Order: sequence, then C-alpha cells, then structure tokens
Amino acid sequence: MIVKSSNVIWHHAVIKREHWEHRNGHRSCILWFTGLSGAGKSTLAHAVQEALFELGVRTYVLDGDNMRHGLCGDLGFSREDRAENIRRIGEAAKLFVDAGLVAMTAFISPFRADRERVRGLVMHGDFLEIYCRCPLELCEERDVKGLYKRARAGEVKEFTGISSPYEEPTSPDLVVDTSVLNLGESVAAVLSLLRERGILQATD
Amino acid sequence: MIVKSSNVIWHHAVIKREHWEHRNGHRSCILWFTGLSGAGKSTLAHAVQEALFELGVRTYVLDGDNMRHGLCGDLGFSREDRAENIRRIGEAAKLFVDAGLVAMTAFISPFRADRERVRGLVMHGDFLEIYCRCPLELCEERDVKGLYKRARAGEVKEFTGISSPYEEPTSPDLVVDTSVLNLGESVAAVLSLLRERGILQATD
Repeated sequence: MIVKSSNVIWHHAVIKREHWEHRNGHRSCILWFTGLSGAGKSTLAHAVQEALFELGVRTYVLDGDNMRHGLCGDLGFSREDRAENIRRIGEAAKLFVDAGLVAMTAFISPFRADRERVRGLVMHGDFLEIYCRCPLELCEERDVKGLYKRARAGEVKEFTGISSPYEEPTSPDLVVDTSVLNLGESVAAVLSLLRERGILQATD
Repeated sequence: MIVKSSNVIWHHAVIKREHWEHRNGHRSCILWFTGLSGAGKSTLAHAVQEALFELGVRTYVLDGDNMRHGLCGDLGFSREDRAENIRRIGEAAKLFVDAGLVAMTAFISPFRADRERVRGLVMHGDFLEIYCRCPLELCEERDVKGLYKRARAGEVKEFTGISSPYEEPTSPDLVVDTSVLNLGESVAAVLSLLRERGILQATD
C-alpha cells in the first residue's frame, strides 16, 4: 500500500511472522491444552513456558487469569457464550502466532467443534492439540479450586464432567496423562512434540 | 498455586512481563495511533515497527487487517459495536504488553471515552496516545481506500469526519502532523517519545 503525503510517498513496510521466526530461531504455533478442570492444563502450560524461556523461546500463556476478566469479560457461561469465549481465545492466540510466539492456551474447552474451529483459523501444523488426560475421580479428589464440590452441591451449573460433557479429542497431537506422568515428564513430552514438529530445532 | 498430582507436588511457575522486558532490553507498552482515515496511522505504525525491528525491539501491530475479520469479526458499526471493537483491541494490546512487546494499534478510534477506557486498562505510563493529525481536506484528497468518496455519496454511514465526529485527543502523548512531517520525521518523533518515556534505552 502506498499513501501519498503532501509531498512524499509513504511506503507501507511490513514486518511479518517469518521475520520474527527467523530472528527468534524457532517457529510459532498454538499449543492448545484441553482437559477437565484440575487435569493440570495451566500448571503444565506455565511449566512448559518456563522450560522454553530457558531455551530462549518466545511464548505467551492465555488462561483464565488474563482472559476471563479482559477480552472475554462480557461473556457468561451459556453454550453460545462458551463458544464465543473459545473463538476469541483462538483469535487472540492466532495474533500471537502472527507475532512469532508460541501461544499456549489453558482452557477446559470441552467441545470438539469449538476446538476444531480454532484449528481451522490457522495454517495446517500451527495448531497442536494437547490433551491433559486425567480421570474425573482424581480431578475431583484434587479439587484445587473447590469447584467440583460446588458443582456436586448444584451451586455451579453445567460444570464439565459433572453436569456437562467433556468431549475427548479424537486425534490430539499429544496426550499427557497427568495421573501417571509427573510435571517434569509432562514438560519433556511437550518439548519432544515441539521438536518433532519442527517448532524447535532438534538441537534445542 | 500448587496442584497435587497423584504423587507429586506441581509448582506453578510463572514467567512474567518483567522477565520478558529484562530479556528484551526494553519496556513494553501500547502505542495507540489515532486519527482520521487517511491520516497515515497504519503506515506510521508499520514504519515504526520496521525501525524498531532494526533496533531489536519486539513489537506487534494491531490494525484492521488482523482484527476486523478475526477477533472483532462479529461486530458491526453501531455505536455499541464500535465501542466494543475498541475495547477488544485494547484488551488484546494489553495481552501483548503482558508478553513484553510494544503493541501498536492503528484505528481511527474517534471517541475520547473509548480511548480513555483503554488507557484505564493498563498501568500509568503503559498507554501512549499518538495523534496522527491531518486536515480532513488532505485525508479526503488522498482518499487511499476511496472511502471518503463513498461517504460523500452516502454509501458509507457514520463515516468519521463526514457524518460522524472525530474527537481530538485533549492531551495526547505525541502529535504527529502528517501533513507537514514526512514518514522518516514521523518515525523519528515516535522513537524520541519512546526514549523519553524510558520504553527504549536512551542509547538505542
């Protein structure tokens, strides 16, 4: 695009994703962590971020802390609002990919259709679905936020796993069984995936 | 936060804005470019991005190209939708600030209240309002996208400057008069601002 000023031609310079990827020394992508409440999505995402930080990889984690009261602060918990919530998270993550970062998202995102819609937003290979698998019983036993107890008492409506379904990924890019693996092992599994897919160099 | 796994304690590691800023060697902030259509906001933002890229500064530009069909794709042009559009742009920019980047936004954003709301989203000093000032007559003469012509013909409703007001910033952090300055001079003015405010080191 060229904009004519009063007396000069303004050229529209554009720094693109490729420029950032080249500078960063790694590809950008979305790591989409999905799973039940208490399965360890946010913990794993932040631990992966810490490991990647040490490797010099640019990352950002989108989670309830920075999304629910911000970009999605106007949304409730109806089926429509939950879908819109996931859509916006996907769109925001896409911006980070465009900026050359590894964007990680840590949301239950229980519905397959919502997740597939996000996959469709980006190029093939840019969306890596990581299923944090953990038996409901164990998530409920952990009950870090006390939400399962409240859901059982009927105080939280449409709570995933209790009164609303969780649709398991049919072909996730990675399954991390957090009832079996410890955090270090889980992080290692994610880093292996990133090397396999060429997000990181094999030597990182 | 600590999550109890079956047999281990999971510590919640968090890489924060300060870590990125330290690594990047610059502070993060929002550069909010505002002004009439054709005033050169997007051109200037991308030119600043190019200059900052050369300086090793991490940036991202939010503009119509990546927002209108994505994160704000569900919004129309009613007063409410335009306010929500600006709110989401502000919230998205805030995420980039949190990720340690200099987030630049290039939208007409004609209403003072909408811009002030975004200023209120972030910490004092994180929101720098840059007014791309240019006489309406010159913007209309440039008419890069042919929108003024269509607005005059009544084909575009509520077009800023023609059939909808533009509220000038009362105390912008910088005024760039794009009818007087050429692009290089405009970029230099923005870089000076960034040094003055300590976003960049004075030696950059």
